[in-house]
Amino acid sequence: MASQSTTDLGQATAEMLARIRQRKPLLHHITNFVVMNDTANVTLHVGALPVMAHAREEVAEMVAAAGALVLNPGTLTPEWVEAMLIAGRRANELGIPVVLDPVGAGATTLRTQANQRLLRQLKIAVLRGNSGEVGALAGMGGVVKGVESVVDVADPVKVARDFARQQGIVVAITGKQDVISDGERVVLVDNGDPWLKTITGTGCMATTMIAAFCAVEQDHLLAASGGLIAFGLAAELAAAVGQVSIPAPGTAAMESRPTGQPPAFGPGSFKVALFDALYNLTAEQIVAGAKARWL
Amino acid sequence: MASQSTTDLGQATAEMLARIRQRKPLLHHITNFVVMNDTANVTLHVGALPVMAHAREEVAEMVAAAGALVLNPGTLTPEWVEAMLIAGRRANELGIPVVLDPVGAGATTLRTQANQRLLRQLKIAVLRGNSGEVGALAGMGGVVKGVESVVDVADPVKVARDFARQQGIVVAITGKQDVISDGERVVLVDNGDPWLKTITGTGCMATTMIAAFCAVEQDHLLAASGGLIAFGLAAELAAAVGQVSIPAPGTAAMESRPTGQPPAFGPGSFKVALFDALYNLTAEQIVAGAKARWL
Amino acid sequence: MASQSTTDLGQATAEMLARIRQRKPLLHHITNFVVMNDTANVTLHVGALPVMAHAREEVAEMVAAAGALVLNPGTLTPEWVEAMLIAGRRANELGIPVVLDPVGAGATTLRTQANQRLLRQLKIAVLRGNSGEVGALAGMGGVVKGVESVVDVADPVKVARDFARQQGIVVAITGKQDVISDGERVVLVDNGDPWLKTITGTGCMATTMIAAFCAVEQDHLLAASGGLIAFGLAAELAAAVGQVSIPAPGTAAMESRPTGQPPAFGPGSFKVALFDALYNLTAEQIVAGAKARWL
Repeated sequence: MASQSTTDLGQATAEMLARIRQRKPLLHHITNFVVMNDTANVTLHVGALPVMAHAREEVAEMVAAAGALVLNPGTLTPEWVEAMLIAGRRANELGIPVVLDPVGAGATTLRTQANQRLLRQLKIAVLRGNSGEVGALAGMGGVVKGVESVVDVADPVKVARDFARQQGIVVAITGKQDVISDGERVVLVDNGDPWLKTITGTGCMATTMIAAFCAVEQDHLLAASGGLIAFGLAAELAAAVGQVSIPAPGTAAMESRPTGQPPAFGPGSFKVALFDALYNLTAEQIVAGAKARWL
Repeated sequence: MASQSTTDLGQATAEMLARIRQRKPLLHHITNFVVMNDTANVTLHVGALPVMAHAREEVAEMVAAAGALVLNPGTLTPEWVEAMLIAGRRANELGIPVVLDPVGAGATTLRTQANQRLLRQLKIAVLRGNSGEVGALAGMGGVVKGVESVVDVADPVKVARDFARQQGIVVAITGKQDVISDGERVVLVDNGDPWLKTITGTGCMATTMIAAFCAVEQDHLLAASGGLIAFGLAAELAAAVGQVSIPAPGTAAMESRPTGQPPAFGPGSFKVALFDALYNLTAEQIVAGAKARWL
Repeated sequence: MASQSTTDLGQATAEMLARIRQRKPLLHHITNFVVMNDTANVTLHVGALPVMAHAREEVAEMVAAAGALVLNPGTLTPEWVEAMLIAGRRANELGIPVVLDPVGAGATTLRTQANQRLLRQLKIAVLRGNSGEVGALAGMGGVVKGVESVVDVADPVKVARDFARQQGIVVAITGKQDVISDGERVVLVDNGDPWLKTITGTGCMATTMIAAFCAVEQDHLLAASGGLIAFGLAAELAAAVGQVSIPAPGTAAMESRPTGQPPAFGPGSFKVALFDALYNLTAEQIVAGAKARWL
């Protein structure tokens, strides 16, 4: 609280983004097969460098060059969890922040226990999950079906703050409103767009964003908030592309369509526009568009 | 035959799609690395929820929450086939439909035998493959090179019907014309577009579509037909985007291009448009555009 | 040198591309999880057929049907390297060209040693890497961070020629200028665009291009050069799409945007345009646009 709580979150986010683009930190991911390509691209678009490496024989050596480590057991097997522990321990020794995305925690015993083990055996900087995943790990409610939160926790601010304090980490619960807490301070982020729910991997992309910001900012509450502000804002800008790409009824462009249908804006176009917007994000856009506040 | 044979296929497809969007069934995939991202996205775009999970320690628990199970050994190892059997047995116990995509059956002994084993040891709801793959499994001709049918079976209606009857399953052979049979009834679907052949994973996406429809419809012949009608129609709508996005020669938009080349519509644009069209598909479009008939 | 050195590289590239499109060779990839989807698509867009298969039980059988084998240990484990050796030995027996992409060589001991082992135990047709990766394998300088060359070798022509001669292979070092040598002859390719650095997997895509050309051309120096010319040219055409898709300030299209921001062209749009351009590449474009010369 205290002095930190008056930090202008938009301004801070713009400054952190500038540092990412200047320093180009390496983000070592041990992550799931579904999103590897997308999160490698998000890493590049935000200005960092990606590497995906999971062999137990090399992860300790690889992470030593990284600015942050992402652990995402979204398509886990026990062998991959072992690799995560090896990389995580080395990252802890070197003071490299570790960001955990507990994909599907609560959906199966394997997932819940694997994530609990990572939380217990490693010093995690930031845990980012949806409401059901974090609720399942915290034992504070929430229901997960597959990788989706189908019942959210009743009071996300309380869950984030209490679990963060208990674990000594930063907890970020993402959803319509993102709630981020280090156990004392709480930030609420309202950037984002419903289109994010129509494509796979946006939670994993948000985690990669947080890792990029943690690589350049030691206040991990600020870093997690900045990553989510920037990502949510890119989503808003991408959604805005959709509003203008559909020609108005009656125009020549519309009338000449052979099927009589308007050209669709949909999740395919949104994903392209999201990556474009993320890459093109400016300090001005962030300062003007950040919708975040200290609780 | 009988009463079913008069069902209006377009109308039935529109109704099944509405049920998917309302119920949002979970589709548990144990699938290949190439298409995981694409099929997760197709799952979301059609209105269902995806999860990819292959660890033997969790697949039985995960599938219990699913509306359908997709088995796609496109980048198989023996360990993954074991996970498919564990998940498939549990799905069978619970009455959850299992959809098999025998990617590359016929190309190697491992693939042919693995798919035969899945067919023998599990109760499969729908088998969807290209002509060569199904022909190889049925022992009725067809040649596969890699994952492509390079020699089609001579009489797909006979192969689909005979193999379906022999196995007690629904067989869907996809290609220029899709042939679907449960051993008695036969449906022919002419929706689709040649652009589908220019991108990877469209067969796998079609299988995911079938699984989504099987999750809400117990008549799996109708479900498989509906999934293929909807997917083929989305491809047609996506291809239509290409026809209007190229400015006519002589227009300002064309003349101002620095290279003098028309802006390309190609497989990259087609894939984006396919995902957009799938998400935006309406009941009206389906009823008007379905090109399907009972044989 | 000698007679070959007068071959018109643009004309030769156009002829090789025509052969790929006519023969549709199968490209067997044992590659990393990040780029499997992208390289399968590039394979299709250039006119060949992709298959991804890594099970030790099937790789020898699968590669026998292939026109070329791609080995890309970008997310390697020791088991995958064994599969690469099995497939590579069989390819060598059958005279099928093997193209190696040493992703991240130099970043960890495992990666450097695995690639050295592949080079030692297999007859490689073409090695394609960035400056740091090739430098690390050749022991001639260059520094790799993750999968990125952060310090390039001082004299790429010397490194490529010397390492090619020592190994009896073709070496392609890609970067702002591509350098290709068989130990005697040297080709320099200046096609390409800075946008390539903004998306993941473009090095891996370039390797797939080289494999496609090697499948139809026994002079692997010419094949590697052709693959890189065609890929670089597609990137240039894709970047040109960006220059015209942004409406000029003051036009109606621009003014009607709700956010007041120009529609972004960025890495998402570039990737779509790259795939479109690759698929649509014509002999005329290649002959007119090739920027390649014999040293």
